[in-house]
Amino acid sequence: MRAGRRPTPESQAGGRVSRVSVTPVAFRDPPLLNVVGVHQPYVLRAIVQVHTDAGLVGLGETYADQAHLQRLEAVAAALPGLDAFDLNGLRRVVVTALGASTGGAGASFGGMLDLSSAVDTVAAPFEVALLDLQGRALGRPVSDLLGGAVRERVPYSAYLFYKWAAHPGQDDDTWGEGRTPEQMVAQARRMVDEYGFGAIKLKGGVYEPRHEIETVEALAAAFPGHALRIDPNGAWTVRTSVEVADRLSGVLEYLEDPTPGIDGMAAVARQSGLPLATNMCVIAFEHLKPAVAADAVQVVLSDHHLWGGLRRSALLGGICETFGMGLSMHSNSHLGVSLAAMTHLAAATPNLTYACDTHYPWKSEDVIKPGVLEFRDGSVAVPAGPGLGVELDQDALAALHEQYVTCGQRGREDTAYMRTVVPDFTPNTARW
Amino acid sequence: MRAGRRPTPESQAGGRVSRVSVTPVAFRDPPLLNVVGVHQPYVLRAIVQVHTDAGLVGLGETYADQAHLQRLEAVAAALPGLDAFDLNGLRRVVVTALGASTGGAGASFGGMLDLSSAVDTVAAPFEVALLDLQGRALGRPVSDLLGGAVRERVPYSAYLFYKWAAHPGQDDDTWGEGRTPEQMVAQARRMVDEYGFGAIKLKGGVYEPRHEIETVEALAAAFPGHALRIDPNGAWTVRTSVEVADRLSGVLEYLEDPTPGIDGMAAVARQSGLPLATNMCVIAFEHLKPAVAADAVQVVLSDHHLWGGLRRSALLGGICETFGMGLSMHSNSHLGVSLAAMTHLAAATPNLTYACDTHYPWKSEDVIKPGVLEFRDGSVAVPAGPGLGVELDQDALAALHEQYVTCGQRGREDTAYMRTVVPDFTPNTARW
Repeated sequence: MRAGRRPTPESQAGGRVSRVSVTPVAFRDPPLLNVVGVHQPYVLRAIVQVHTDAGLVGLGETYADQAHLQRLEAVAAALPGLDAFDLNGLRRVVVTALGASTGGAGASFGGMLDLSSAVDTVAAPFEVALLDLQGRALGRPVSDLLGGAVRERVPYSAYLFYKWAAHPGQDDDTWGEGRTPEQMVAQARRMVDEYGFGAIKLKGGVYEPRHEIETVEALAAAFPGHALRIDPNGAWTVRTSVEVADRLSGVLEYLEDPTPGIDGMAAVARQSGLPLATNMCVIAFEHLKPAVAADAVQVVLSDHHLWGGLRRSALLGGICETFGMGLSMHSNSHLGVSLAAMTHLAAATPNLTYACDTHYPWKSEDVIKPGVLEFRDGSVAVPAGPGLGVELDQDALAALHEQYVTCGQRGREDTAYMRTVVPDFTPNTARW
Repeated sequence: MRAGRRPTPESQAGGRVSRVSVTPVAFRDPPLLNVVGVHQPYVLRAIVQVHTDAGLVGLGETYADQAHLQRLEAVAAALPGLDAFDLNGLRRVVVTALGASTGGAGASFGGMLDLSSAVDTVAAPFEVALLDLQGRALGRPVSDLLGGAVRERVPYSAYLFYKWAAHPGQDDDTWGEGRTPEQMVAQARRMVDEYGFGAIKLKGGVYEPRHEIETVEALAAAFPGHALRIDPNGAWTVRTSVEVADRLSGVLEYLEDPTPGIDGMAAVARQSGLPLATNMCVIAFEHLKPAVAADAVQVVLSDHHLWGGLRRSALLGGICETFGMGLSMHSNSHLGVSLAAMTHLAAATPNLTYACDTHYPWKSEDVIKPGVLEFRDGSVAVPAGPGLGVELDQDALAALHEQYVTCGQRGREDTAYMRTVVPDFTPNTARW
C-alpha cells in the first residue's frame, strides 16, 4: 500500500488498479474541410483499459497525438494501486505524473485550440474508465453514477462538412464532394435519412460567408422543421459575425464561434440577438470567469475529453445552469467508447437541452462490439448494461492499432495536410 | 412501475424506495445569543429514513420547522418507487410535491435567512439518504461516492457563543455565562481542551462592536496559534465593518457577514483587505452570479442542508474553485447524522481548506449509536463504514421524538423567545 491511501485491509467493490494499457489506434476519415485545413486520411485515438484486482476492466478513449500519448503513458504507469472510486486521487496522480510539463494541450486539435494546462485532458479517459469500473462493480450504468438518466435516448445532430470528393490519389468516397448548397443538402439528406437527426450543424469557415449563408438557407428550406447551427471556428471578424447573425436570426438555434476570443464573442453578443455558442473561447474552467464577466457566450459546448471527464463535465453543466448559460455538447472524431460516455453524460445532465454533436456517421470502423449504440430518430438509447455498457472487440482493436502503426500519422495536422494540395493555404481565422 | 422510469425487470443494487419516514425530534440547547435573539430550550430537527426493497435504510437529517415538515412529508409520500441512484428523479419528485408552494424557506433559521425556493432545502435530507443507501449497496463510504476522501480527518472549529448562564427559570448550565472577554476565553479553553480545535469562531452581533473586538483580541492573545473568525450576522453598517476589518486585519483568517446583502458586502470588500465570508448573502445557487459580479465575498460557507445535499454542495465547491472563491462550511445546530454527512462531504472536497463550523459541542443528546464520530485534535475521522457510517439508536430516536412532542416548540423563534425576557428587543441587523 502507498502512503496516504486509506488503510483498508482488503479491496472494496471495484478494487484497486492493477494494470493499465493505452492503445493508440487509427481509423479512416474522409477529407473534411475546416478553418485550419482538411482532415487527414486517418483519425488517431487512444483506447485506455484500466484493470483492477477485482478482475474488472474499465474503458476510456481520448486523443492520440504523440505528446498526449506520452502523458497518458506516464499516468498509466503511476495508476496501479489507486482505488477505483478515488477520482480525487486520479487527479493527484495526473498532476504528479505531468510534473513540470503540464503546459500546452498535448493534443493538437488540428491547431484550432490550446490549453494552459493538460491536467483535465489527460485525466479524462482515466476518469471515464474509473466510472466504467464503478458501474461494473455495481451492476449499474454510468448514467446512474452521474445522478440518473433524465432521458432514455440522447438526441444527436447531423454534422455536415464541406469536403473534397476524395483524399488525393484515392477514389471518391461514398459521400462525394460537399461544396455547393445542393451538395450540402444532399449530404444532410443522407444523414437525416440514415440516422433520423432532427438537428443539423454545418462546419463552416471554409468558404466566404456569403456562400456558407446560402448553404444554411438551402438547408433551412430543405429541412423546415430541423434545428440548424453553423460553426465557422472563428473565421469571421466581429462585423461580419454581426451581419451573419442578423441575416440568419430566426433560422439558427445558435451561432457557434463566429469570431475568435472572449472579447470578440462578447462584442458580437452585444450587437446580436442570436445566442452565441462556443467550443473555442471557453474550453477549460479557467475561461469561465472571464466569459461570464464579459457575457461573451450564451451556450457552452461541453466535451468530456477536454473538461476532465464526466464528473467535471457535470460540474460544467451545473456552472452553466447557475450562471444562466445554455449547454450543448461538442464532438471531435471519436469511436464507440466515447459515444457511450457522451450518451451517459448527456442522459444524466438535465440542462443539456440541445442535440449533441457527433462525428459518428463519418467513420466506418470501430473498436467496440456492435449492437449497443444504434441511432434511431436521431438519438442513441442510453446503454443499459453495467458501466459504459460497451465491450471492446479485441480483434478490431488490434486491427486499428496495426493501422495506427502503419499509417504514418502521429498527430493531427490539418494545415500541413491541406498544404500538400494547396501550398499557400493559411488558416482562415478571422479572415472574412 | 411508474411511467418514465427505466423499464428494468428487477431492482438493481440499492433497490427502489419502498417506504420513507420523517421523524421530528427535539434536543436540549443552551441559551446561545445571536443577532436575532437567543436559542430556545430545544433545537428541532427531522430524521429521514428511506427504506428500499433491497432491505436497506438510508439516513438524512434536516430542520423541523412546521412548514418544512409538511413539505418533507409530501416528498416522503411521493418517493416510493424511486431508484436509489436516481438523484435527478428525486429533484423532480420534490418539484412536483412542492407544486406551487416552493416559495419561502420553510425553515425559519431563526429569522436570519430566507430563500426564494425551498427545492434544495427540502431535497437535501433525501439526497443524503439516497447517497447513504448507495454507499451501503456498494459497501463503501459516502466519501467514495463523492470522488474519494482527500483527507482522513476533517478539522472543525470551536464555535463560541455569547450566552446566558441559564434559560429563564432553570439552573445554570455547565457552560455558565458568556459575556466578558474573560468568560469567552474560558469557554474557548474548555472547547479547545475537550476537542482539540485549532480554529475558533465567535458568533457576534450581540454586543456593540467594541466589546466583540475586545473578545477577539483576548482570544488571539490566549490562543496565539489558532485561526480566528467572527460572525456578527450582518449586525454592522458598511462603515463599521470596514473599521472592524482594519482593526482585526492580521488577527482573523476571515470576517463572516459583517453587513447584510451582496451590495453591502461588496462595499466592505472594496475597502478592506480581509477576506469576507458569507452564509447569509450567498445561500443558494441564484446568489452566486450576482455575488461573483460584485466581487462581494472571498469565502462561501457551504451547508448541504441549504444547498440541496452533498452532490449539489460539491457543485458549489467546484464553482468556488472556478470563480476564485474560498470554501468553508457553515453549521446550524445538528445531530450525528448531519455531522457524518458534513464529514464525508468535507473529506471529499479538495478546496475545502478551512476548518468547518459545528454546533456539536453544544448538544448533550443524539440519535445515533455512539463511537463513530469522535473528535481528536479538533477533527473527526471520516467514518469508514458503508454509506454515512452511522446507525440510528432507535431508542434514542424515540426519546428525542417524545421530547419533540412534549416540548411545545414547533419552529425556531429566537426573537420571540428573547422578547419573553427583553420585551423591547429588536434584531440587531445593521444596528451598529
